[in-house]
Amino acid sequence: MPLSETAPDPIQYKSIAIVGKPMAAGITRTLIELAAFLRSSGRTVLFESETAASIASTASAADAADIAHYPVLSPADIGQQADAAIVVGGDGTMLGIARQLAPYPVPLIGINQGRLGFMTDIPAERMLATLAEMLDGDYESEQRTLLEGKVMRRGKPIFEALAFNDVVVARGTGAGMVELRVDVDGHFMYNQRSDGLIVATPTGSTAYSLSAGGPLLHPSLGGIVLVPIAPHALSNRPIVVTDRSEIVIEVIAGRNVSVNFDMQSLARMEHHDQVVIRRSAHTITFLHPRGWNYYDTLREKLHWNEYPSVDGQLK
Amino acid sequence: MPLSETAPDPIQYKSIAIVGKPMAAGITRTLIELAAFLRSSGRTVLFESETAASIASTASAADAADIAHYPVLSPADIGQQADAAIVVGGDGTMLGIARQLAPYPVPLIGINQGRLGFMTDIPAERMLATLAEMLDGDYESEQRTLLEGKVMRRGKPIFEALAFNDVVVARGTGAGMVELRVDVDGHFMYNQRSDGLIVATPTGSTAYSLSAGGPLLHPSLGGIVLVPIAPHALSNRPIVVTDRSEIVIEVIAGRNVSVNFDMQSLARMEHHDQVVIRRSAHTITFLHPRGWNYYDTLREKLHWNEYPSVDGQLK
Amino acid sequence: MPLSETAPDPIQYKSIAIVGKPMAAGITRTLIELAAFLRSSGRTVLFESETAASIASTASAADAADIAHYPVLSPADIGQQADAAIVVGGDGTMLGIARQLAPYPVPLIGINQGRLGFMTDIPAERMLATLAEMLDGDYESEQRTLLEGKVMRRGKPIFEALAFNDVVVARGTGAGMVELRVDVDGHFMYNQRSDGLIVATPTGSTAYSLSAGGPLLHPSLGGIVLVPIAPHALSNRPIVVTDRSEIVIEVIAGRNVSVNFDMQSLARMEHHDQVVIRRSAHTITFLHPRGWNYYDTLREKLHWNEYPSVDGQLK
Amino acid sequence: MPLSETAPDPIQYKSIAIVGKPMAAGITRTLIELAAFLRSSGRTVLFESETAASIASTASAADAADIAHYPVLSPADIGQQADAAIVVGGDGTMLGIARQLAPYPVPLIGINQGRLGFMTDIPAERMLATLAEMLDGDYESEQRTLLEGKVMRRGKPIFEALAFNDVVVARGTGAGMVELRVDVDGHFMYNQRSDGLIVATPTGSTAYSLSAGGPLLHPSLGGIVLVPIAPHALSNRPIVVTDRSEIVIEVIAGRNVSVNFDMQSLARMEHHDQVVIRRSAHTITFLHPRGWNYYDTLREKLHWNEYPSVDGQLK
Repeated sequence: MPLSETAPDPIQYKSIAIVGKPMAAGITRTLIELAAFLRSSGRTVLFESETAASIASTASAADAADIAHYPVLSPADIGQQADAAIVVGGDGTMLGIARQLAPYPVPLIGINQGRLGFMTDIPAERMLATLAEMLDGDYESEQRTLLEGKVMRRGKPIFEALAFNDVVVARGTGAGMVELRVDVDGHFMYNQRSDGLIVATPTGSTAYSLSAGGPLLHPSLGGIVLVPIAPHALSNRPIVVTDRSEIVIEVIAGRNVSVNFDMQSLARMEHHDQVVIRRSAHTITFLHPRGWNYYDTLREKLHWNEYPSVDGQLK
Repeated sequence: MPLSETAPDPIQYKSIAIVGKPMAAGITRTLIELAAFLRSSGRTVLFESETAASIASTASAADAADIAHYPVLSPADIGQQADAAIVVGGDGTMLGIARQLAPYPVPLIGINQGRLGFMTDIPAERMLATLAEMLDGDYESEQRTLLEGKVMRRGKPIFEALAFNDVVVARGTGAGMVELRVDVDGHFMYNQRSDGLIVATPTGSTAYSLSAGGPLLHPSLGGIVLVPIAPHALSNRPIVVTDRSEIVIEVIAGRNVSVNFDMQSLARMEHHDQVVIRRSAHTITFLHPRGWNYYDTLREKLHWNEYPSVDGQLK
Repeated sequence: MPLSETAPDPIQYKSIAIVGKPMAAGITRTLIELAAFLRSSGRTVLFESETAASIASTASAADAADIAHYPVLSPADIGQQADAAIVVGGDGTMLGIARQLAPYPVPLIGINQGRLGFMTDIPAERMLATLAEMLDGDYESEQRTLLEGKVMRRGKPIFEALAFNDVVVARGTGAGMVELRVDVDGHFMYNQRSDGLIVATPTGSTAYSLSAGGPLLHPSLGGIVLVPIAPHALSNRPIVVTDRSEIVIEVIAGRNVSVNFDMQSLARMEHHDQVVIRRSAHTITFLHPRGWNYYDTLREKLHWNEYPSVDGQLK
Repeated sequence: MPLSETAPDPIQYKSIAIVGKPMAAGITRTLIELAAFLRSSGRTVLFESETAASIASTASAADAADIAHYPVLSPADIGQQADAAIVVGGDGTMLGIARQLAPYPVPLIGINQGRLGFMTDIPAERMLATLAEMLDGDYESEQRTLLEGKVMRRGKPIFEALAFNDVVVARGTGAGMVELRVDVDGHFMYNQRSDGLIVATPTGSTAYSLSAGGPLLHPSLGGIVLVPIAPHALSNRPIVVTDRSEIVIEVIAGRNVSVNFDMQSLARMEHHDQVVIRRSAHTITFLHPRGWNYYDTLREKLHWNEYPSVDGQLK
């Protein structure tokens, strides 16, 4: 599947959902302007329910009344009815809605009022002109993978969740190290002692995984990276496996161990509980402005055009 | 102060305390043998109270009876009465007793039945011959520093503890990042977002700090290292400051934040609580066999004589 | 393509080439024993020419005479005539012959007299029993990728080579930093200032790349990793791209810049010269003993079963 | 010795040397303006000889004539006659002149026309007002250490140099690894295989050492850091020793090995040559504007106030 291609049929984007950062009064005017623009172009506008509730509780009466004309839908209903969703906020907002829309074939577009994100890459001040082009079919499209994780206790599933960035098994506060046994595709990889283990998608490779020393993974790679957090053995290095792999993490030792999905859903784990992680059958589609390229985003976000550490010293 | 020197007066080691790894039945015979050897050389033998209790609950009746002849003292009383303490166990055992004996001028000798540690560097099987030489004055002596940390809430101290390895301020399980403000000697260093911050002594530089990417610090350096754990900003690197510094860490954001001392004592921290860390006025003295050298221990413990990663490939 | 499978037809291994570490007198008896075993099992034995020359110049007259009965072939002729090649030596020996045999469908088996390697994973002392099973068809087979690199000067190719581990563009001695422009699949990635850039296969991910901070890549991943060496910008982290990518590295600044292939073939580069790197159409097939698994090798080679840094301290 | 103090006697700065970045025509007007300001305040202005030659060859006739009125001195003469030196350029310019002035008690002030450096921390556009205050005695002063290195061949010194940032022993282009034996204070530290070894001062800890994974060292620490470059053994980590140490590096294996001092002076090394490194008896004094603090510079240079990697994702 090509990472970046032009969709042939713009007419599909007739019904557009709007999702905003929760409780962010500062974006209300942007949302109103966006909705008006979409409606004036003959499209149906749907507001995501938490977004609508945030506006109702933070916006002026006039603004709230303005929004109140639009239909309000749950994420699941958006998944059923919308042809695309436009997200206004930061990458955290995108992350939350993307995981909820993952089961549905709704492509996502990200608008950012502040510093651009990895996934929210259209500046609010150029939003209307950019969207006009994109909704006419002039865009770049790319697919992103998700992970699904299932916690097994004595052979039975007790918790399941999706992760767009990462699944993290980690020790609790002040709890010394955790010891984890990792098997990949039925083969024993290692017993690892550390603060925890991050299992990240290419999308997540620019998030927590990067902070813990993991490599960047290009979204087209088809890989998953396992990154130990502060591992006891200095040779316990990040390892990248194919995303066709099944990864099983078993808690061998450690106190207050838990598993997190995108740092949001959480389950406590007991000794001998296992998390079984594999690539989800769902994918997420992002639409970007024409000319968008992944490396441009990396350079911008990681300051690769600056040379901060030793300016002027090493020539 | 020189790191390594020969003490002039061996006669001082007349009263010797014995400390063993708690609940480790496997060391009982070693402890008995050690006590008998010391007594036969005309010295007074004192058993540390938790060690004696462990023996009583795990040893055979005969062994327990054998030990029961010796006086049993608390760590504080050992601090007052012993001329030296011999610790049988691993580095964890040494760490625990060293912190308790820190206020007293009692030098420590470490015996290990298994793989040698950084601080327990005399193999049990050569214990008697080695101790015979050392207690006659033929040894290397070195000083190690400790940290003292005080948690301040609204200007008042609410918790105090010593750390021999490290003071760690870290987030709780599944709690996203913590944001910490760090000031050194009254100067603002940075606001750091991460899993937490390790403040380590040279002794601690081979422990958790090393796992988190910190450098090794020679014990004679007079330094303290600040090592961020999985920092959000990739340029947040370990920084070494002089051990005359006062380091203040304030919790700005994050949930379930706590401070740990040597991964053992613990205090919960609220937003705006501060930990004030400085070098303790106490030091710990280790005695090593003649010819001991710090780099020999590093090489042994860190496998510096092996070339694990790329054997045969890079010549 | 599955990473590890059982070949159905053992009869194919009738003509076996023997390759030994050059100028390694210590392996002569192993080579003689190996040849005798293969001949006694009814197979044709071919000696690689450099191996034969090494024996002639280092072995006793009797041993040299023994070997002299076997036909001696160049690597290219081995590629044409042999059904498999058995390599006795370390990973460096395997690396050298693998690159030469890459154009031919000759699977490779590695024997090691000393510490096992990543690719030479059969101990010499169990060689005959293991080979008996493997040559009867009882083995695991896996494919490894190679890179091909072409140096372009003013639009014309001036040097070409294959790499099994890595292609490295690096500065010369005492020459400050190099500045490299990197494009991937026609997209600008970054201008990087550093000591150099390593472009490694999964096989190479356990070699120089690992020393420079790169991640491990499972051989089945289909990836290539770009690892900067001591990069000026602290956010210049290793990045893994799909092995369908074309990577172009242009020398922008720096003195005495050169490109290396597996640290062996070498070309000097001028400013504005480019190295164009892509996956080679060739692959290399390794045969391993039944039950072999990649993670077993990683654990063994990287000491993942030991906990060197903080033994006994963090429990 | 305190890191930062106020000098009591401003009258000492009567004779001021001006040093500019070589061949940098863009700074000529700044140098002229600076010289006029100093003269108008009743001070004697001295031009460093290479600076004067650069102006003569790059400036307009009028500008060159203007400068021609001032006396021109070699660095050694500046060391004898000047009370302070003002350096206009980047950290590289400062590095070069600092090493030459090290034997003399001439404090240095750094002016930068572009992005501020670690050592050139006064913006050119605020230069005159800032200098007016500083030359009246209102400044912060700090001392920096240097290293001196001596290359020994068969017991005899063959090369000596000072380094302000670092002494680096490294392999040549395409030359595989170097193997180095390191002894500290007469004790064997390790045999290290790598691309090379950096021995850095606190000043150098923000330069090449940082790129290679070394920690930051506060200038008041009294430390020296040894940082391996791409070490073969993954446990070969940076180690900080006291600056009272004598470090001896012997070349055991490797081709085209050389030693560099601040990436500038260079000597080829043969097998068994040794570099003996210790802290120089000289120090360098920097004068900074009142209120200057080392951590402010670190934050600015290392972008510690930004959160580039995962903005918006980890909250």
